[in-house]
Parts: sequence; structure tokens; C-alpha cells
Amino acid sequence: MTSIPWTDWGQTKPALTGRMESLLRKELSSTTPSTAATLDDARLPESALAPAAVGDLGRIVGPGHVRTDAETRARHAGGQAYAEIVRRRAGDAGAAPDAVVLPGSADEVTAVLRACAEHDVAVVPWGGGTSVVGGLESIRGTHSALIALDLSRLDALLDVDDVSSTATFQPGIRTPAAEEALAAHGLTLGHVPQSFERASLGGYVVTRSAGQASTGYGRIDDLVVGLRMATPVGELVLPAMPGSAAGPDLRRLVLGSEGTLGVVTEVTVRVRRTPAVKEYEGWMAPSWEAGQEAVRRIAQVGPHPDIARLSDADETRVSMAMSSTSGRSRALLSAYLRARHVSEGCLVITGYEGDRADVAYRKSAVRKMLRDAGAVRLGERAGQAWVHGRFSGPYLRDSLLDAGVLAETLETATTWRNLPTLYADVRSALHDSLGRALVGCHISHLYPTGASLYFTALAAAEGGREAEQWARAKRAANDAIVAAGGTVTHHHAVGTAHRDHVGSELSNVGLEALRAVKERLDPLGILNPGKLLPLA
Amino acid sequence: MTSIPWTDWGQTKPALTGRMESLLRKELSSTTPSTAATLDDARLPESALAPAAVGDLGRIVGPGHVRTDAETRARHAGGQAYAEIVRRRAGDAGAAPDAVVLPGSADEVTAVLRACAEHDVAVVPWGGGTSVVGGLESIRGTHSALIALDLSRLDALLDVDDVSSTATFQPGIRTPAAEEALAAHGLTLGHVPQSFERASLGGYVVTRSAGQASTGYGRIDDLVVGLRMATPVGELVLPAMPGSAAGPDLRRLVLGSEGTLGVVTEVTVRVRRTPAVKEYEGWMAPSWEAGQEAVRRIAQVGPHPDIARLSDADETRVSMAMSSTSGRSRALLSAYLRARHVSEGCLVITGYEGDRADVAYRKSAVRKMLRDAGAVRLGERAGQAWVHGRFSGPYLRDSLLDAGVLAETLETATTWRNLPTLYADVRSALHDSLGRALVGCHISHLYPTGASLYFTALAAAEGGREAEQWARAKRAANDAIVAAGGTVTHHHAVGTAHRDHVGSELSNVGLEALRAVKERLDPLGILNPGKLLPLA
Repeated sequence: MTSIPWTDWGQTKPALTGRMESLLRKELSSTTPSTAATLDDARLPESALAPAAVGDLGRIVGPGHVRTDAETRARHAGGQAYAEIVRRRAGDAGAAPDAVVLPGSADEVTAVLRACAEHDVAVVPWGGGTSVVGGLESIRGTHSALIALDLSRLDALLDVDDVSSTATFQPGIRTPAAEEALAAHGLTLGHVPQSFERASLGGYVVTRSAGQASTGYGRIDDLVVGLRMATPVGELVLPAMPGSAAGPDLRRLVLGSEGTLGVVTEVTVRVRRTPAVKEYEGWMAPSWEAGQEAVRRIAQVGPHPDIARLSDADETRVSMAMSSTSGRSRALLSAYLRARHVSEGCLVITGYEGDRADVAYRKSAVRKMLRDAGAVRLGERAGQAWVHGRFSGPYLRDSLLDAGVLAETLETATTWRNLPTLYADVRSALHDSLGRALVGCHISHLYPTGASLYFTALAAAEGGREAEQWARAKRAANDAIVAAGGTVTHHHAVGTAHRDHVGSELSNVGLEALRAVKERLDPLGILNPGKLLPLA
Repeated sequence: MTSIPWTDWGQTKPALTGRMESLLRKELSSTTPSTAATLDDARLPESALAPAAVGDLGRIVGPGHVRTDAETRARHAGGQAYAEIVRRRAGDAGAAPDAVVLPGSADEVTAVLRACAEHDVAVVPWGGGTSVVGGLESIRGTHSALIALDLSRLDALLDVDDVSSTATFQPGIRTPAAEEALAAHGLTLGHVPQSFERASLGGYVVTRSAGQASTGYGRIDDLVVGLRMATPVGELVLPAMPGSAAGPDLRRLVLGSEGTLGVVTEVTVRVRRTPAVKEYEGWMAPSWEAGQEAVRRIAQVGPHPDIARLSDADETRVSMAMSSTSGRSRALLSAYLRARHVSEGCLVITGYEGDRADVAYRKSAVRKMLRDAGAVRLGERAGQAWVHGRFSGPYLRDSLLDAGVLAETLETATTWRNLPTLYADVRSALHDSLGRALVGCHISHLYPTGASLYFTALAAAEGGREAEQWARAKRAANDAIVAAGGTVTHHHAVGTAHRDHVGSELSNVGLEALRAVKERLDPLGILNPGKLLPLA
């Protein structure tokens, strides 16, 4: 991790293809390449953490695990929202916490919370650092200082129960490590968001993440069966229960709590046998509407694939431009699609993971529904192309930022009936705000009652005013989403980005309920201030 | 409804078969028949509701909808727990509310809550009256009086969205009426608990009900997509969202809230196309252990049936004794089972609802898993026998009470690994407490990580001390459940029956979180006092 530049997602940045560059030239205003500041350039304030607090925290976690050095602090200066990245690229690490504290056990987490309460220090629980909604912003509020509570040392698989198909982890484990540990038991969690390589299990839980295979495996909400959470007033312990009617399901109060109520110290999740077969294929739907009708039927009638994605025509165009297919293959594909009247079509990806008979049965039924909707099969190569690029988004963003392109995403969800309106309105809002822009969208999480919409916006970055440029677009999109009855976030959480709009979904009484819990469990308000709940 | 005796579940009571009578004679201590008091015998106190409150409430809902007559009050004197029934059978309607108020709209509910706050009147929200955990007990606490807020006038289907597969109902609708309204649109909710004929949709929501087909259709928790709830501080509005990460899922705070936080006034649920095919069949597993292994595999590997039940040997014996099969058929069946070495076996019922191809696929896969476990197919007649009797439990209880038999049920759930211990411990606790007793058990709700256990206990009633007799057994069972790591309730809610044990599952911090919400939304504590949360 430490060898990755502090501004970047990974060690490598994919080159933009020639076709992608020409698409950007054609569709966006002219762009100015930009370079990212290195760690040596990072400007950050002195740590405001009092020496007495440093001492007390060091006695709890060991002095080596209270880090006040510039590099560690700068690497915790916010998450992965566009505004945070451009800030760091400009050398501004002003958002750095006053210290990074790395507890080694659940008891140490509890003790750290107690010490922070005593010293009036705000705490930002820190998993993989991948929040794209400002969930990791250093908002000190009225407190004397702020620490990032980095959970990366709490990365163990604690228990596997293969009779009950559950596994218990510490919260800081990154997904590749979790999957590797499970694979040794022939098991998998199957939770695969785009942030897969860096995000932590605890982060998934508190942000209500949905993985790329959520259509088959379910959201993280559906996978959590038990939890422990340290709070300033004691430990919340929710033992693994397959089903219960013992009051409201308090796991669901932790899911989505974004570190404002406590720090998750243990998570028991449902796991599955490693699938014997994984098959992915691409299809081309003749239109966005026809594709929507197909995926709706797949979600409601079943059986369904584990992965189902439908890109709109613009996103399909961008995907094609970024694909590594040779010119000759592309020409053949174009001719093939033109002959089948889907040349301006919408890409569909389906994926199946399971045993051979199960995959064959589901694939056959889904194929029929796709054909009924007029979709044309592109085959497994298109599926594999998606698999190959499924985690490339954040890497590509770094390349786009270097090229002077604003690149950001947002997501929403609504009922099937409401989806077309929501789609049109958010798209318009982004186009109206950004001017010349490429705005693509896909549906990637199917439910019987509706689906998510995931937008990607590309525009020429307004050098020096990148954050404001996106903030305007984001506000326009949020307003459009709320007006059209969508959720302000399907799987990225609230953080600061959706704080002012969350009340429209939860209502004032709902916010009051959350405030009441917050005040009871965190009476001094030290936990992740300024996140989730609208500011008073 | 009014023509049903106030002590009974229905207008008819099934006769006990001769074989059932001889089984009871053989296994229980000697019983003394008992008769139930009629409404004319019902003793109840004067209404304590002040005339000013009656007047104000009448101005809100109409004077005819504030009922203080003895019959209406007596018919709201508690729910369907054994202790409540025996109390009514003895002519004791002391648990009657001071009035029954029937609002005609959500706005009237809000106004009633406001008036009750003004007049210091406790409110017990009342749906179908079927709580078996004391959820409808009249616990006035320190308040001046107590009303039952009967929601039966709020029984409309408000909206059907057949694009999104959702339907919006008022909370008081009973399930047969809801299903009839949906059937006109070719739709079904598929939520079918044993209380189906009388229970209300709002009741399902606030008690976290699970229907007999929950393995296929999901619990009510999974079916609710949107909600409105009137509270003393305003309305909680949670619009229908297929998926969201906008903070904790507050629907889950309403689910299981048991009328302690507010009154649900609108519920949007997921619905499905009416299945083309419904098929049920019976199997005999060679043992409880083999049956468990089979249903676990069904739940974890899939595909699964919509209904899957496994009875232990004792429950299988009782089912056989109550079946209407002729002596000759029984003898043939016994010979058939003996020849296949499952004569002391455990009955398995599987049910499939869907389109023809889907049902055929699932049935074939499940049959193979049952055969692998050594189960022998009894066929569709055994499945139909179960269908025929699936709602008969509460009727049969009335007959058993007449015969002087204590008849009560309780349920729990745990992980698959923990299930055998939980089963053995609860069974022992019931036997130890009740002495000579018939204790049967079944698994009827499968999850990938575990399952529920549903116990039925029959014993000779201790005339005049029935409530104490069961309270002892229930306490022993609750203690055993908690000690073995099960939930104190899988789908009957907490009420008063599990109030003292719920803390073991939610932990003190969890209880504090619930108390905080309760105090914020219901600052005067008028909503269903004494339920769900342990008494201070």
C-alpha cells in the first residue's frame, strides 16, 4: 500500500486508448493535462493532538501505533471522492487527521474510544479508505483534535462454521485477504464491489455496500448475520441469528451507521461454497427500454443470474472505446450488430456462479428472456472483457484526471415504474450542469421491485475549480434524484455528500430516531462528526 | 367475527379423533374437561376513560367509533396466548381496555395519539388480535386509562404497482381480504402464517412475522419496501425503495417495534404473480438427524422449495393420530414405512409454488436431496393432508382446552451447528417442567445459516392454575433457549412473554438504543407500555 502514490488508486495507470482519446476530444471541451503532487509536496498542518492524549493512546495501542508522521497522516487525508483526490493532487493535505491510531484488538478499540472521550478527541473509524461520499473527511467539529482510527491491524478470520455457512472476521480485513482465507475452506463471501482490492469488510457493513454480484449474492445487508460494535457507552453484541423477531433487527441499525454510533469490531457473515463454475457473457439489447424490460423480467420472474448489468447507449459507446479489441474485430462486430438492428444498442452482461447444473438451468432461462426482449448474444468473450475490466474504474479515473478530465460517479435506485423518469432527470441534471460531457449509466443491482442506476460523468476539468465544478453537478443530481423519488445513495452511503438530502428519504421523524440513538450511544459526539446526519 | 364465541378462535371446533384421545390418555396425566365462560358471564371493570377523553376521541373518529360497551371491550381483553385464553374462559375480562377506538384514516390515528397524549391515555395498537406473546395486554402503567386502537376500519388496498410488483395497503387489512384484493390483479403476497385468517398486515410488520412459506417468499421483513407510521411527534415516512444506503434501514426499526414507537398506517409490500402451480408432498425421513441434514442441504445448496417442514418423531406421531386417514390406509402406510426402515420416522412436507418449469426443476432437485438423506416419498396425498390442516392449530387448541389439555407453542431459531443442542435443551426443559407431556417440534423456516424450531406442548391442564403451570414451563424454555444461544422468538415477537429475556439477544447497549428511540418518538410513553423492552 505504501508504495502507491498517495493520490492514486494503484501502482499502475491504464493508458487511454486512441479511440477513447478521440471520443473525449470529440465530446468534451478541450482539456489541460494535470500532474499530481507527490507526498513530499504535501502541505499539512501541525498535529493538534495534545501530548497527553498521544501518551494515553500510546499506552493503549503501543506507542508505535499512534502515528503523527506527515506521511501516515497525509495518507489518511480523506477518501476517494473526486473533490478529495483533486485536493490531494494539488498538494493539499489539510484534511489530514491529527494522528492515526491503529488498535490491535477489540478491547483496544474500546479503550481508545474512552481515551478520546476523556481528551475530547473526535474519531473517524478508518477501514479501507475508499469512501466516495466524504465519509472519511476530517470534521473535528467542536472537539480539540481528530484521529483516524485505522482498523487495518484487525484483519483476522476468527472463526469458520461450515455447518452453518458462516464466517467471523475482524472488521479491518481487506476483501482479497478475506476471500483468500475463506478459499482455504472452500468458501467464498462473494461480495465484490469495484473497491474490492482496497475496501474493508467493516467498511462494507457501515456503508451498506452492494457488490457487483448483489443480484445473486445479495447486498452486505443480507450477508451479515452477527455483529459486535464498540461504543462509548459499552459494547453492542448481536449474536449470529438466522432469523428472529426479538424486537427490531439491530444489525440493521449498525449497517449504514457510518461510524457515527460506534466501531464495528467483529462481523459474522453468511458464506457459500466456492462456485464450481463461473460463466459470464455479453449481450446487446436493441435499446435502453428493451434492456430494462428484460432485466426487470429477469428480476421478477426468475431464475436470475448472479451478475446482471445493462449499460445505456452512451456507456456502451465508452466501454467499446476503452476495449482492447482490434480494429478488425470491431468492424466485424459492428457489421454483426447492424445486421441484427442493435448497432446503437445497450450492452448487457450476465454472470452465473454455482454448480454446473444450476448455472446451466439459470443461463438457459435468462437467455430466453433476453432473446424475447430482442437482445443479441455477443458471447463469452464480451463477458470476459467485462471480467477483465471489472475493477479498472478507479485506475482509469487516475488516468483521466492526469488528462484533465473530471471523472466521477453517483448512484441511485428506485422502483421499476419510476426508473425511466429518474434516469432521464438525473441525466439532464448532469448534462445541464456540466455542459459538454459524457454521461453514461448502467443498471447493475436488480431487485424484484426496482433497480439501481449508476452514472459516470466525464467532462473537461475546470483547472483549479474542480471541486466546485463537481459540487454543482452533484447538487443538481441530488436535487433531481430527490424530486424524482429515488434514493440519494444506493450503495455509497451518506457521508457528507448526501447529508443534506437524506432527510427526504428518512423524514424528520426518522432523523430524530437516528439522532436519539446517536446521542445515547455517543453522548459526547466524538464519533465521525458531521457525517450521515444533517448538521443542526 | 362477532358471532365467534369470545374465547374461541373460530365458529367450529374440530373433534379430537379417537386415536388422538387414546394418545392423550396414554401419554398425559388424567384430564378434566373444562367449559368456557360466555360473553354474558364476562366480568370486567368500569371503564376508567374520562368523559372528556371519550368526547375528544369521539370528535376525531365519530362517536360510534369510540366503544365502551362490555362486549367490544371484552373482545379486546388480550390476545391469543394460552394464559389469556384460559383467563377469558374463566369469565375474567379484567384485561379489557377502557375503550376501543376505531380510526377511519391515518390522520385520525395521528389525532387520536395527540388526544391520548393530552388525556394521559395509554394506547395499545390492535390489528387482528392474534398476539400469542402478550403484545395486546392492557398494561396501563402510570397512565390514567388505556384504549385499544383497533385498526380494522383501515383495511383498504391503496395502490397496486404491477410494473414494480408492489402493493400498498392500510394496516388493518386481514390477510384473506388482502389476498382477495391482490388476486383481482393476478398477484399474491404469499405471507401465510397459521394466524392467516385473522391476523392483520400491520400486525405482521410490527411483530416480524414469518409465514409458513417463508423459505420461498421470505419473512415479512423481506417483503416490506415502504412504510408510514404515525408517532406522537409526527409521521415517519419511508418511501418504497428497492435498495438504499441512505443511513440505517429504518424500515427495520419499525419491523418488530410492536406498537411501542408508533402506529403503522400504510405498508407497501413486494407482491408476486399468482403462481400457476402449487404442489405439496410428504416424505418420511428416517430420523430427526437425517431430516435436519436434508433440510440444511436444501437451504444451503438449493434450489429450495417454498415450504419445507420437518417434524420430529413425536410431532409426527401426533400428526398421524389427528389425520383422518382410515384404519386400513394407516396399516398399509405403516407396512410401507416399516419395509423402508423409516417406521419411527420424521415427517417432511415440501411445497412448491410457481410456474410449471420452475416447480418441476426445484422439485426434482429437492427430491434428490431428500432421497440422498434416506427419506421415503409419501406422495401428494400427505402434502394435501398438511395443506388441509395448515390453519387448524388454533381451532384444535380450543378443542384441547375443552378436553382439559394445556396446549401451547413456542418458537426459537439458531444456526445449523447449534440446532441439535438447542432442540435437546428446550425439549428437556419443557418435559422437566410439565411432567407427563407430549412435546413435538418442527423446523419450518429454513435459512442458509440456520432454521427455526417450533415446539408444541400438550399436558393435562392444572385446573384453576393453568396460567402458572404454563408460565413455569415457558420460563424454563426461555432460560434454556438463552443458555443454548437461540433467539427467544423467531416470529412471535417479544410482547410481555419474552421481555425479560430479550436483553440477552440485543445486549444492554441495544436496549439503550431502543429506549432512546422510544423516548424520542413517544416522550410520554403512551404507546403499548410494558411491551418489548424490559421493565425499568
